[in-house]
Amino acid sequence: MLIVQKYGGTSVGSIDRMKAVAARCLATAREGHSVAVVVSAMSGETNRLLKLVNELHDDLNDREVDVIVSTGEQVSVGLVALAIRAAGGKARSFLGHQCKIMTDSAFSRARIVSIDSKPIKDAFAAGEIAVIAGFQGVDEKGNITTLGRGGSDTTGVAIAAALGADVCEIYTDVDGVYTTDPNVVPTARKIDRISYEEMLELASLGAKVLQIRSVELGMKYGVPIHVRTSFSDAPGTWVVPEEADMEKVVVSGVTVAKDEAKITCKDLSDTSGVAGKLFAPLADANISVDMIVQNQAYDGTTDLTFTVPRGDRKRAVEILKEKVPDLVGTGGEKVLFDDEICKVSVVGVGMRSHAGIAKKMFQLLAGENINIQLISTSEIKISCVIAHKYAELAVRALHDGFGLSLPPNERTGL
Amino acid sequence: MLIVQKYGGTSVGSIDRMKAVAARCLATAREGHSVAVVVSAMSGETNRLLKLVNELHDDLNDREVDVIVSTGEQVSVGLVALAIRAAGGKARSFLGHQCKIMTDSAFSRARIVSIDSKPIKDAFAAGEIAVIAGFQGVDEKGNITTLGRGGSDTTGVAIAAALGADVCEIYTDVDGVYTTDPNVVPTARKIDRISYEEMLELASLGAKVLQIRSVELGMKYGVPIHVRTSFSDAPGTWVVPEEADMEKVVVSGVTVAKDEAKITCKDLSDTSGVAGKLFAPLADANISVDMIVQNQAYDGTTDLTFTVPRGDRKRAVEILKEKVPDLVGTGGEKVLFDDEICKVSVVGVGMRSHAGIAKKMFQLLAGENINIQLISTSEIKISCVIAHKYAELAVRALHDGFGLSLPPNERTGL
Repeated sequence: MLIVQKYGGTSVGSIDRMKAVAARCLATAREGHSVAVVVSAMSGETNRLLKLVNELHDDLNDREVDVIVSTGEQVSVGLVALAIRAAGGKARSFLGHQCKIMTDSAFSRARIVSIDSKPIKDAFAAGEIAVIAGFQGVDEKGNITTLGRGGSDTTGVAIAAALGADVCEIYTDVDGVYTTDPNVVPTARKIDRISYEEMLELASLGAKVLQIRSVELGMKYGVPIHVRTSFSDAPGTWVVPEEADMEKVVVSGVTVAKDEAKITCKDLSDTSGVAGKLFAPLADANISVDMIVQNQAYDGTTDLTFTVPRGDRKRAVEILKEKVPDLVGTGGEKVLFDDEICKVSVVGVGMRSHAGIAKKMFQLLAGENINIQLISTSEIKISCVIAHKYAELAVRALHDGFGLSLPPNERTGL
Repeated sequence: MLIVQKYGGTSVGSIDRMKAVAARCLATAREGHSVAVVVSAMSGETNRLLKLVNELHDDLNDREVDVIVSTGEQVSVGLVALAIRAAGGKARSFLGHQCKIMTDSAFSRARIVSIDSKPIKDAFAAGEIAVIAGFQGVDEKGNITTLGRGGSDTTGVAIAAALGADVCEIYTDVDGVYTTDPNVVPTARKIDRISYEEMLELASLGAKVLQIRSVELGMKYGVPIHVRTSFSDAPGTWVVPEEADMEKVVVSGVTVAKDEAKITCKDLSDTSGVAGKLFAPLADANISVDMIVQNQAYDGTTDLTFTVPRGDRKRAVEILKEKVPDLVGTGGEKVLFDDEICKVSVVGVGMRSHAGIAKKMFQLLAGENINIQLISTSEIKISCVIAHKYAELAVRALHDGFGLSLPPNERTGL
C-alpha cells in the first residue's frame, strides 16, 4: 500500500516525540508499504515566529511572513528525516519548493494548485521514506507561501491525492472524532466511520482535529482519511465516502459554535433587492454571514436576522448603519445585536430518510426550557441559535436524547 | 553606487537590533545607492538548531542538517525585510534558491559556483532593498546547502562580486581589524587599510571578524571589503588590493595562534620520498599540516617537525605510528609531540623590500628569554613556534618592538 501519515505539532513537539514518529513510520515501511510523512512545525514554534513578526508588522498576509513561518516545518522535516535514519531507516526531506507544491500567491492562506509527485516517487524507488513539510508551498514566481493554520492537514491529503495513496492518516493528540465534545458530555463516543459531508457539517467539532479544507480535498479526490492518535495503535475515525450503513445512523454528532453573534435589522422596506442591499456591503468587507432568517411583517416592512463571527459583529453593525439606506438616520434603533448566543446543531446523513428529527430536537430543547431564537436546516443538519448560557445544557440534552452515548446499532427510535 | 552590506548574528540578534540594521540600510538607500543586504542567523540560533540535531545525529556533513540550520538565516531575511518596510522603505527577501546561489553538494561546507544576479537587480529596479540570506545556497539538484561557519561573509563578498558592487561592507561587533588583539595589547591600533594578502596572513586575527574564504573571493574578484561596526558610523578597516603606500608600513600586525600542536618524527631514513610517506596518510585523514621543518642529521637519518590543529594531534600521532614504515614497531619512541605551544607571527607587505625583520623579531623574543622552537617564513610573514605560556608576552614584545602602537607614519627604523 501507499500510505501518507501526517503528524501535528504535538506529535513532533520534542526530539523524543520525533523518535516515536520515526519508529511508527519505519514500522509501517517495514510492513512493505511506501510511506510519505507530512509534518507540522514543533508545537509552539509557529507562535514563537509570529511573535517575532508581530514586533514589526501587523498584517500577516505578507510574503515575508510566509518566508519566516515556513521555517518551522523546515526544521521538523530535517529532524524527522534524521530521526528515521537514526532508527536505521532511509529518509529524505522535501520542502514545498522541492516537491513543487504549487499554490496561488495568496500569502498566509494560499491554495494548492498542483503537486509534482515525481521526486517523492523517486524517493520511494530508492527505498526512502519521504518526509514532506506541511503548511508550505511555492507560487509560480518561486515565492514561498503558506496554507493557513492547520494547513498541514491539507498538505497531507493533497499529497495523498497526488500520489493516489490508499489512505491519509492524520495523527493528532486526540484519538478520533467524537459524537460531541467529551469535555462537555463524558459519555460522548468516538465515531468509527463518518462521511465527508457529515465531517464538513461537524466543522466546529472537526476543526479541532482536522482542517475543513483537507476534508473538502479528501471528498473531491476520494482520499480515505484516518484521524487517529500518535500515542497508541488504536484505530481512530475514518472519514470516507458515504456508505449504505451510515444512513441507519440518524444523528452522528452534536456540535456547538460559541463564537458567533446575532444581528437583526428591523423595519426594512419589504421590496425585492432589500436583502442584496444589506449583504453586499458586508461581503465587500469580507464578513461572512450565516443563518439568515427573514420575517415578513404585514405592514409592508420586513425584519432580517442573521449571524456573523463575533469578532466581526462591531464592524458589521457600523457598516450596516452607514451603508444601508433603509437603516441610515431614521428614527429609533433599527440595528439590534446580541453577542450572548450560540449555535447548536445535530448532524447526520440519516436525516435525509428520516422525518421527525427537527421535531424531536425542538422538543428536547423545550424540555430544558431553552428558547430557540433562530432555526436553519440543511439536508443533513439542523441548527438552532439559543442563548449562550444554555450551550452545554443543550448539547447534553441533544446528545442524550438522540442516544449518542449508545453504540450506533443500539440506538432505537427517535 | 551599488553597496552590499553584510550583518552578522549579533547585529541582527534582536528585533531592536534589526530595526537599527533597517535604519542603516535605508539611510544608505536614501543617499541614492542600490543596497543589497546579506544577513546571518540571529545570534544563538544556529547553535540552538545544532543542539536539536545533535540529539539525533553526529555527522554534520549531511543534507538534512543543512535543511535545518539554513532556517536561521531564512527567519532573519524575512524579519529584516519587514523591519525595512516598517521603517518606510521597500524590501524583498531572497533565499539561496531564489537568487540561485549555486554551490557544489558538499553539505555543511559547500563552495559557491555561481549566482544569478538578475532577481536582485530586478528588486533594485523596483526600488527595493534586496535582503539576502547568508550562509546558504542550493546545489544543481535543488538540495539546500550551507557554506560553513562564518559563511555569510562569503555570501556577502560573492554577492558583491556577482553584482559588480563598489564595496562589500561587513558589519560586525568590533570596529575593524587591529594590529593585534586589543585584549592582549591595550595599545593595539585599528588598521585603516590593508591588502588582501596581509589580511589572509592575519587569519588568526581576521578570522574573528572576517571569514578567510571571503577575503580570497574579494582578492579574486577585486571587491573592496570594509570591515566595520554596526554600532557606530566610524569607518573601520578597508581590505583592498595592495597600494603603493602600504609598503612603507613594514609590519602591519602581530598574530598568535594557540590552537596548534607540534609533532616531531625522529630518525627517519634520509631518502627521497620520506616526507611524502609521512604526510600522505595525514592528508588522507583530512588533517592539515603547517610549518614543516626538516633537520638533516649526518648519520643518514633526518628529523621532521610540523604543526597540526591541536584537535587533530592525537589522531595524527596514531596514524603516523600505524602507517609510516619508518615509525612502525622500531625501538624507542620515534613520534614526539607537544601540545603546549603557540605560533606568533608578524605580517606586512613591506617585508618584501625591507631586510632585517626576521633578525629583529628573533632579537625581540630573545630579549624576553623566549626560546624559538620552529621558524617559518613567507614573503610577507614570519612565524615562530614558542612555548604556549609565552604567547601574550611575545605578542606584547613584538607589537611594542615594531612600534605598532604608533600611527603608521610615525613608526621609525626597525
